[in-house]
Amino acid sequence: MSRVYAVCLLLLMSASLGAQGANSRAVIDIDNDWGYTESDATAPEALDTPATRWQSVTLPHTWNALDATDETPGYRRGAGWYRRTLNLDSYQSGRRFVLYFEGANTVADVFVNHSRAGGHVGGYVGFEVDITPFIRRGDNDVRVRVDNSDDPDVIPSDRSDFVIFGGLTRDVWLEVLSPVSLAHLEATTPIVTRDSARSHLVVEIANPEKRRGSYTVAASLRAPNGTEVASGRTSVAMTGEPTRALTMDLPPVRSPLLWGPGHPSLYNLVVSLSSGDGTIDRVERRVGFRWYRFEPNGPFYLNGERLLLRGTQLHEDFAGLGAAIPNERHRRDLEMISEMGANFVRLAHYPQDPEVYRAADSLGLLVWDELPWDRGGVGGDRWRANTRRLLEEQIRQNISHPSIILWSLGNEVSFIIETFNRGDTASVRGFMRELKSVAHSLDPARPTAVRQIDEVADIVDVYAPSIWAGWYRGVYADYEKALLDAHTKYPRMLHMEYGADGHYGRHSENPINGAGMRLESGYAESVGTPVANIARNGDWSESYQTDLLDWHLMVTERQPWLAGTAQWIFRDFPTPLRPENPIPYVNQKGLFTRDGKPKDAYYVYRAYWTTSPKFVYIVSHTWTERSGAAGKPVTVRAYSNCSSVDLSVNGKSQGDKSRVTSDFPSQGLRWDVNLSEGRNSVVAVCAGADARVRDSLDFNYTTAVAGRPSRIALGAKQLPNGHLLIEARLLDGNGRQSLGAADRLYFNSQGAGRLMVDLGTPTGSSVIQAANGYAAIEFVPPPAGKRAMIVARTQEINGARLDLVGSSVVPAEAKP
Amino acid sequence: MSRVYAVCLLLLMSASLGAQGANSRAVIDIDNDWGYTESDATAPEALDTPATRWQSVTLPHTWNALDATDETPGYRRGAGWYRRTLNLDSYQSGRRFVLYFEGANTVADVFVNHSRAGGHVGGYVGFEVDITPFIRRGDNDVRVRVDNSDDPDVIPSDRSDFVIFGGLTRDVWLEVLSPVSLAHLEATTPIVTRDSARSHLVVEIANPEKRRGSYTVAASLRAPNGTEVASGRTSVAMTGEPTRALTMDLPPVRSPLLWGPGHPSLYNLVVSLSSGDGTIDRVERRVGFRWYRFEPNGPFYLNGERLLLRGTQLHEDFAGLGAAIPNERHRRDLEMISEMGANFVRLAHYPQDPEVYRAADSLGLLVWDELPWDRGGVGGDRWRANTRRLLEEQIRQNISHPSIILWSLGNEVSFIIETFNRGDTASVRGFMRELKSVAHSLDPARPTAVRQIDEVADIVDVYAPSIWAGWYRGVYADYEKALLDAHTKYPRMLHMEYGADGHYGRHSENPINGAGMRLESGYAESVGTPVANIARNGDWSESYQTDLLDWHLMVTERQPWLAGTAQWIFRDFPTPLRPENPIPYVNQKGLFTRDGKPKDAYYVYRAYWTTSPKFVYIVSHTWTERSGAAGKPVTVRAYSNCSSVDLSVNGKSQGDKSRVTSDFPSQGLRWDVNLSEGRNSVVAVCAGADARVRDSLDFNYTTAVAGRPSRIALGAKQLPNGHLLIEARLLDGNGRQSLGAADRLYFNSQGAGRLMVDLGTPTGSSVIQAANGYAAIEFVPPPAGKRAMIVARTQEINGARLDLVGSSVVPAEAKP
Repeated sequence: MSRVYAVCLLLLMSASLGAQGANSRAVIDIDNDWGYTESDATAPEALDTPATRWQSVTLPHTWNALDATDETPGYRRGAGWYRRTLNLDSYQSGRRFVLYFEGANTVADVFVNHSRAGGHVGGYVGFEVDITPFIRRGDNDVRVRVDNSDDPDVIPSDRSDFVIFGGLTRDVWLEVLSPVSLAHLEATTPIVTRDSARSHLVVEIANPEKRRGSYTVAASLRAPNGTEVASGRTSVAMTGEPTRALTMDLPPVRSPLLWGPGHPSLYNLVVSLSSGDGTIDRVERRVGFRWYRFEPNGPFYLNGERLLLRGTQLHEDFAGLGAAIPNERHRRDLEMISEMGANFVRLAHYPQDPEVYRAADSLGLLVWDELPWDRGGVGGDRWRANTRRLLEEQIRQNISHPSIILWSLGNEVSFIIETFNRGDTASVRGFMRELKSVAHSLDPARPTAVRQIDEVADIVDVYAPSIWAGWYRGVYADYEKALLDAHTKYPRMLHMEYGADGHYGRHSENPINGAGMRLESGYAESVGTPVANIARNGDWSESYQTDLLDWHLMVTERQPWLAGTAQWIFRDFPTPLRPENPIPYVNQKGLFTRDGKPKDAYYVYRAYWTTSPKFVYIVSHTWTERSGAAGKPVTVRAYSNCSSVDLSVNGKSQGDKSRVTSDFPSQGLRWDVNLSEGRNSVVAVCAGADARVRDSLDFNYTTAVAGRPSRIALGAKQLPNGHLLIEARLLDGNGRQSLGAADRLYFNSQGAGRLMVDLGTPTGSSVIQAANGYAAIEFVPPPAGKRAMIVARTQEINGARLDLVGSSVVPAEAKP
Repeated sequence: MSRVYAVCLLLLMSASLGAQGANSRAVIDIDNDWGYTESDATAPEALDTPATRWQSVTLPHTWNALDATDETPGYRRGAGWYRRTLNLDSYQSGRRFVLYFEGANTVADVFVNHSRAGGHVGGYVGFEVDITPFIRRGDNDVRVRVDNSDDPDVIPSDRSDFVIFGGLTRDVWLEVLSPVSLAHLEATTPIVTRDSARSHLVVEIANPEKRRGSYTVAASLRAPNGTEVASGRTSVAMTGEPTRALTMDLPPVRSPLLWGPGHPSLYNLVVSLSSGDGTIDRVERRVGFRWYRFEPNGPFYLNGERLLLRGTQLHEDFAGLGAAIPNERHRRDLEMISEMGANFVRLAHYPQDPEVYRAADSLGLLVWDELPWDRGGVGGDRWRANTRRLLEEQIRQNISHPSIILWSLGNEVSFIIETFNRGDTASVRGFMRELKSVAHSLDPARPTAVRQIDEVADIVDVYAPSIWAGWYRGVYADYEKALLDAHTKYPRMLHMEYGADGHYGRHSENPINGAGMRLESGYAESVGTPVANIARNGDWSESYQTDLLDWHLMVTERQPWLAGTAQWIFRDFPTPLRPENPIPYVNQKGLFTRDGKPKDAYYVYRAYWTTSPKFVYIVSHTWTERSGAAGKPVTVRAYSNCSSVDLSVNGKSQGDKSRVTSDFPSQGLRWDVNLSEGRNSVVAVCAGADARVRDSLDFNYTTAVAGRPSRIALGAKQLPNGHLLIEARLLDGNGRQSLGAADRLYFNSQGAGRLMVDLGTPTGSSVIQAANGYAAIEFVPPPAGKRAMIVARTQEINGARLDLVGSSVVPAEAKP
């Protein structure tokens, strides 16, 4: 993060701590100028050798940005060291210096001038280290040892289906404080109605020097328009206690502007601490007024009205970054979730970056916040103590965010490693009761939840059973039945996690249908083969993913009793558990690729969940080679939120179709059309007032069915970033692209230039399954005049090569 | 190589150059004390920066020892630099200093004190660099830039189905010479009969200082018992020529001891050069007397008698070493080939280390020596010039070896990269004629050959067509027909390359049979499924590999007209072309694994080809979990070279069987036996005088058929080298090992210790297919007290872990 951005953050961000005058708090971004070295050393002085090579890094940073998605099994779980120089001479004497880490994965030890100043066990939550006793004049040497080794005493389990990225994966701040300062502030809204809203504050004062004296805590709450709507003040006589906690209840706000999706009204709370010398500290919080409930056997209500929770889920991950995501990206992710029409997001499977909650607050997105008790059963005493403490820290840190509606206490905790004998039902139930009690005592207002731990469904307040109709289990046409069955079983339920893997760019003229039948061709329902275990035996096409999600949305939108659902998952993400996925080690259930390219399924959501802006999308812009039987019409579909859409093919209208939610698939927006051999142009236009909303697509169509591939054709396409896209097409003996071919392509290069690999994306993996006989990889070309050679192979095809000089392909005839 | 070994070599080895006195030649091993750095720099001074890190290495060395068999596609093809200090002050002035490189892959530039002293284009053959003009008093800085980048002007092609290892992959020598010295010596045996053998010598004298004077060349040939049997002497008046070549024909040796398999009699030739000052140089060669011919439409004759060429093939490769193989290993390889009964070996696909030929000479093994024109068609003028020159160098270097019977001019040269437009029939034929003419002019005595280039079958003297019955093509029961068809088509033919991939430890109760049928169970011939393309769709079991090779040997042994065959290949080896093999990137057609463990197929060869020592081998020592239908006998087979064998099961004799070569499989040594549920003990004993020859095997048998695996059981076994063998078993829901499971296992470790990966072996690959539901990997355990964790996964099974402290497994119940 840049310093400029940091300053803006200080001025603008809801949860940040405001700076005010020399006596007040200063909060300084120290993300830049760190050194990083990979070392398992435990003492900082062990690094004081010439052999240590410090790599210059800016935070956030993880050492697993690439290795989780390289071809080597596993990823590095071990220790890394960060080092930074901190010169504090410009501050007046008597100030206190605290480092605030938004998160370090998963165990941190902080050293100042080689003395241990503090640390933290457990990732994903913030912690502070008071370094005042360890600093000296001149440069101070700050070193942080971070370790993401598997530790059986620390959640999440090593069996988790995601990557536990190691490093200082979030921002680090230097807080410069008065000797007596505000240590913690919680602002909750225990009683909200349309008429009145109460704010409850918990204020903690830090006084490590055990000073004595009179202090005043003042609170001021301002409406979004800046008008002060409530205030309070209390005197505190400090008599040498190192800390002091107090509560304040502000006078009720009358006719509050309520917070919710579409109207994320946020009030601004300022709490200040003053002594005889004036204000010595000042902290701000954004406050949102809302109330909600999960009706037994019924839906979810927000502010007294039914709200169908339309959700998706998000990991802290992006291609090339891993979990070390800058705040701009976090905010953009939440905006994109909002833009797709969702009002609900599960932060899977751990508390996320503070910016995520700030964004959710300001966008009106409801949040399922989750303790990273993911798989692995119940551990021993140290594990229990750590897990309890991490839940306490998470709630304490996040309690003020209006967006959070649930504390999830875990996920799939009975998925244990077989050889790791822990987690019998009784101990899971017992420990879950403890956690629930911790949550309710710290935050009486919010319900608890878990997902897929049937043995504790009766313990938590809201339960999310596992229903994966048409993917891990059964067929998607059975989804409604499965949902209704769960409804009768679990009085307060949410359906978290449904979906299917979709390999970007893989499409099918005849995907497995809702009855689990693989049809021989087109939509002739008369012949088909039942597919058992579609996750294993399906084709992982976008077509199937799109159909499955389309069906799920059709079903969920018509359940008046339903609290809500959350699709799995917003964006593809890496996992060590899935080595043979089309993109190895990548969970491909995302609506977006790991680098943020939308799949067709994204438009299904926009069609169901948004009303504006209007759009129409022809399926599919990544399906530009199609084939079918001669003389047989081909189905072209579109997704749109317009009321009706006209489709024309090669200039000829195919008629206007009205959008009907219950008309699966694509809400009735599908046309059986006759295509020409070769190039076809399709245009879709919304009707009436939305006639400016349109989409067009050119694609090739053939009735000649290609055989098994026998060779690879390689080409290069210039990309806007100056790189080349190396495209591989699997061709049969007649030079036709084998649209059904899903062979794995293996790319490598020689000479100058560099393939973009280990990114876990459709154009950033050296090993990737073909999609409709096509695969591609991005290449950083060599400087002008330098030679490079790119080779692509499959197991069956020995290879093809592309020779380059600079960015230019050397034509075959020009070769020696 | 150690200095001690080098000294022994100097004293003993047939082709080495003998040291004799201060005026004579000194040949010094300089394999040790090299530095290596990976750098594409082209000038030696570019490395003179503190950033350059020289790794200490001993030759032979390659930078591709591990990366060819890691999981990342491709392997590094680029440049590497070697550096060594050479202090020559102890030598008297006037001596000449020549570096002799046995081979550098594939382009070398040699610098002395930063001046380019010489170099070589093309790998696999030796070359010398006279460094005399560049040396100075004190330390001399010798640097060698070696580059194995793909170069379209240098064979072999980048499409070759093997790894082109980069580096100084063979020994390097310092030769200290007189100003006038012997530069080259060829000793051939143009006319050999039972009564008389003539030796023809080519002697070249180097005189770079263009001295004038009288010299004498003397030759002395001694029989294996040390008796001089022929000698010659000639005077040479040097008149300032820089080089001088002369020929000598020694008087015929009467009743020579003939050279051949089983009687590798070698005579010792010493050629010396003397001047007025006495002997100034001296070189030795081993000479073998033999004659041979390929009879048109008929067999091969050696020394007047038919000899069926029983061959295999060998790459220069070993696990963990790549092509950088020490001489001890080369010699052991040839000994093992000899011990298995072979009399013939093809050096695939390039000239190999000098030690290989020395070993073949001394073991009586006949050799097919091959120019590395492998795939890739015909190149341009520079390519042609290089290829011609490399053939000349190869013949000049190897011509004296009695073991070599054929100069192979190429292999599969019409396998070209599609996008690399070269290699039409006319140009292949034209260039092949040129090469044949080069070979015949340099060596009129030896026939030329090629393999699988049908368009030049009529050009070369001996042709090897492609017949892969039962693997890449058809079924193995058709092998005899295919062989006879080829016999009618190609008047002088050898069958080089047949075989099948066999994944070590994978066995089947019902392998695909000779008719290409996959039988449902046992040998009930009534039901079966025909398997098309067995290489692609077969199970790659040792069982199938064994059957196929057994059948091939049965067929070849009964063809009176057949010159010979060579099985592909002696040992598993890496290739960039086969990423999805059970061991990724490893060609698994070896009789041995890449680290030298015998597969069952090895014993087939010993049974057919050896008469002593006697052995019996029960199939299979790597098949210790078997299953079958209840109440149905199970076939147990043995391979042996005894005349008859008795088998007992659980202490009860199953009868004596006579070995009958025509009784497929296992020459009749098979018994249908009833096994007990659980442990069974089988003992095989040879009959009569060989009763001390026996084999025993314990294995488990069950009639309960395991289902699909649902979990992985991990265990650790202590190995003699102090490492642990981590064993993974795929178990079904009932805890039974899924014997049919071939899922890929993915291994990784965390914490201390180290998995042995990237070795391309059954216990040295982080990714490997299960064999009968089992896979293993070697682990270097952590020091006592240090923790490690090993994780194994499949795509379907999320994982199992094994916790270790030091070498001890932490039992599940002891875990926190």
